[in-house]
Amino acid sequence: MVLKSLVEVHSDSHFPLENLPYGVFRIKKTNSECRIGVAIGDYVLDLCVIATAGLFDGPVLKSSDCFNQHNLNKFLELGRPAWKEARATLQKLLSDTEPTLRDDASLRRKALHPMDKVEMLLPVAVGDYTDFYSNINHATNCGLMFRGSENPIKPNWFCLPIAYHGRASSIVVSGTDIIRPRGQDRPKGNSPPYFGPSRKMDFELEMAAVVGPGNELGKPINVNEAADHIFGLVLMNDWSARDIQGWECVPLGPFLGKSFGTTISPWIVTLDALEPFVCDGPTQNPPPLPYLAEKESRNYEIELEVFIKPAGQEHSYAVTKSNFKHLYWTISQQLAHHTVNGCNLRPGDLLGSGTMSGPEPGTYGSLLELTWNGTKPLSLGGATRTFIEDGDEVIFTGCCKGNGYTVGFGKCSGKILPSPY
Amino acid sequence: MVLKSLVEVHSDSHFPLENLPYGVFRIKKTNSECRIGVAIGDYVLDLCVIATAGLFDGPVLKSSDCFNQHNLNKFLELGRPAWKEARATLQKLLSDTEPTLRDDASLRRKALHPMDKVEMLLPVAVGDYTDFYSNINHATNCGLMFRGSENPIKPNWFCLPIAYHGRASSIVVSGTDIIRPRGQDRPKGNSPPYFGPSRKMDFELEMAAVVGPGNELGKPINVNEAADHIFGLVLMNDWSARDIQGWECVPLGPFLGKSFGTTISPWIVTLDALEPFVCDGPTQNPPPLPYLAEKESRNYEIELEVFIKPAGQEHSYAVTKSNFKHLYWTISQQLAHHTVNGCNLRPGDLLGSGTMSGPEPGTYGSLLELTWNGTKPLSLGGATRTFIEDGDEVIFTGCCKGNGYTVGFGKCSGKILPSPY
Repeated sequence: MVLKSLVEVHSDSHFPLENLPYGVFRIKKTNSECRIGVAIGDYVLDLCVIATAGLFDGPVLKSSDCFNQHNLNKFLELGRPAWKEARATLQKLLSDTEPTLRDDASLRRKALHPMDKVEMLLPVAVGDYTDFYSNINHATNCGLMFRGSENPIKPNWFCLPIAYHGRASSIVVSGTDIIRPRGQDRPKGNSPPYFGPSRKMDFELEMAAVVGPGNELGKPINVNEAADHIFGLVLMNDWSARDIQGWECVPLGPFLGKSFGTTISPWIVTLDALEPFVCDGPTQNPPPLPYLAEKESRNYEIELEVFIKPAGQEHSYAVTKSNFKHLYWTISQQLAHHTVNGCNLRPGDLLGSGTMSGPEPGTYGSLLELTWNGTKPLSLGGATRTFIEDGDEVIFTGCCKGNGYTVGFGKCSGKILPSPY
Repeated sequence: MVLKSLVEVHSDSHFPLENLPYGVFRIKKTNSECRIGVAIGDYVLDLCVIATAGLFDGPVLKSSDCFNQHNLNKFLELGRPAWKEARATLQKLLSDTEPTLRDDASLRRKALHPMDKVEMLLPVAVGDYTDFYSNINHATNCGLMFRGSENPIKPNWFCLPIAYHGRASSIVVSGTDIIRPRGQDRPKGNSPPYFGPSRKMDFELEMAAVVGPGNELGKPINVNEAADHIFGLVLMNDWSARDIQGWECVPLGPFLGKSFGTTISPWIVTLDALEPFVCDGPTQNPPPLPYLAEKESRNYEIELEVFIKPAGQEHSYAVTKSNFKHLYWTISQQLAHHTVNGCNLRPGDLLGSGTMSGPEPGTYGSLLELTWNGTKPLSLGGATRTFIEDGDEVIFTGCCKGNGYTVGFGKCSGKILPSPY
């Protein structure tokens, strides 16, 4: 049964009562302070107003100031009991059978802001951002291009979720322009390395898990309790300058090829909202070591799509379709592995999934793969692309199709601006 | 001429009037809030008290609340004019010819705390921590051990300062115990990988630069202005589990082999205090690309030493002596390179130097090198060590020898506790 909200929600909206994703916004006109909100149809519900009105009256949230903050970190720290309570309170409050908000015109006016009147900001303060490499199609494609067809994937990949530490400072919210980075490229012959604006700008279609309570240093999280430490998911574009990355990355991994910007979608869709879209995790061979062996291995069916809107055009062209279910190491395994050495996770930390490529060429999650390192240009209407050109906007969408409703992530977009240098 | 302080300072103290390093402390007995202080002899000067007394009366600091904070980030953000002004104010205030503090017994009692009565905390909130790999001896040794003698160092190393993003959450202050991490080790034959407590626990003798104002995303910092973005240096132990690191690090670099803990010394010694110990930077061949070419290339003469105090013993044994001058890419080049792609640095970010090995065997900066990956055990009194054993305390010291005085970093220590699992 589709839930009915007191706010009108179109059947193709990403934000029905079944979703209720969390974000941080500011009212554009008044340039107000940033506030926590939940998306419902074409509106944002202001949780500071709801909390101030005393409507979070459950045992965990009644006396908490977690919604009177500039980001979601404090709410995330409270853990699943708080998240469940908030969801129940808000689903009731926003339902068309509940008079509290429905019949109070003054409260509705204060609490519900039309989405086009607000600016979305980063939902969390990210302490640390980790990027995994847990998609087998992506790992295979990169291996085939750079290591050859004998052993495209190294044996360690099948034993543990490979990852690297990313840069937290340059994480930005959807809609933020990204300036084309400068850097070095591998020298040709005896020349010095190329230095200048990257000539191989790429996107990486990823999602990221947002960490909840986390753990103390030295106290690992068990894989079967890991899901209680994940609040929800966002779309993530791990922008990559392939030339810079290729030259710098041996022996210590990606650095400046990634750290110029990482874009996330503004709305965090909770694991509770994604529960109807759980699917089986993959068969893992060799079987995971005991610390990675889950009682129940779960992935999520989330349809992902990437569009490029070329500079100077009004039309966006679909360049790939994939699905979040193509994850080899589940988000619970990623989180358990991350902490098994004692490393502490903190509320708001991001765990990127790795590029979510599907198994066929039209479903790859990066231009590197889609154009096979620039050797097979893509056609976008009249134009072609090997890598991203200045002025191109890259747009990700993600959604789960329920029976008569959609649980969606909205979009995650960014435009590449030319290097000013 | 040696400066004379109103507080008695022994000639071998690390903290004379010429130093004045910054830290954050709490008074042990009262478990007070954390406060900003400066070390002088065996005392800590409480800058909150000094600021409240109106003694920061220069134009930049007069109306700032930067010393009424729980960490140094706000002071760091103010930049070099504030740092210079604070240094001048404090050198005057603490000199034995200045009556303000000298002759005010009540103010002295409030403002000066004996060092053994305070607990030191992390001096900054670290947003992002980056670890460079800029010591040629260390890179050569690692290359010889793991890549062979043909080309121990890859050509990119000589073109750019190689680095990786480290983990910020697990940075701890000197004196914090470190729990031996668990993790996977490379499988033997067709067996599954080993899993359990690391069998190759190591230290890495490093220093880290503490970032000052930093830059906006997309706005690189010029290499000749980079020094104005570095507040000072700390000692840093980049604890490393060599077995975990070796198995996980291809293709994305170190991850869990490092992220279980990184220890820094509590006192940040400012570049202003280190100015008398500047020495020439190294000759770089090939010459650096223009964006890395400095008008003046500067390193610092800082004597570094590592001791191990074995479990159950009272005596510490010196295991290596090195010097911070063995840095190939200067800290200014590291910082300029870090931002050349537009990556933003924030106040309090740490830039690790990389392991500071000297050119001879007795001067290497890690047990990996000193014992040549465990093949040449070190003798510590009656005991031997290939890697760190449970209960061992590893102690770094660093100091600059001036004419009649010492500018020192105190110590950076940590004890390895057994894995409880």
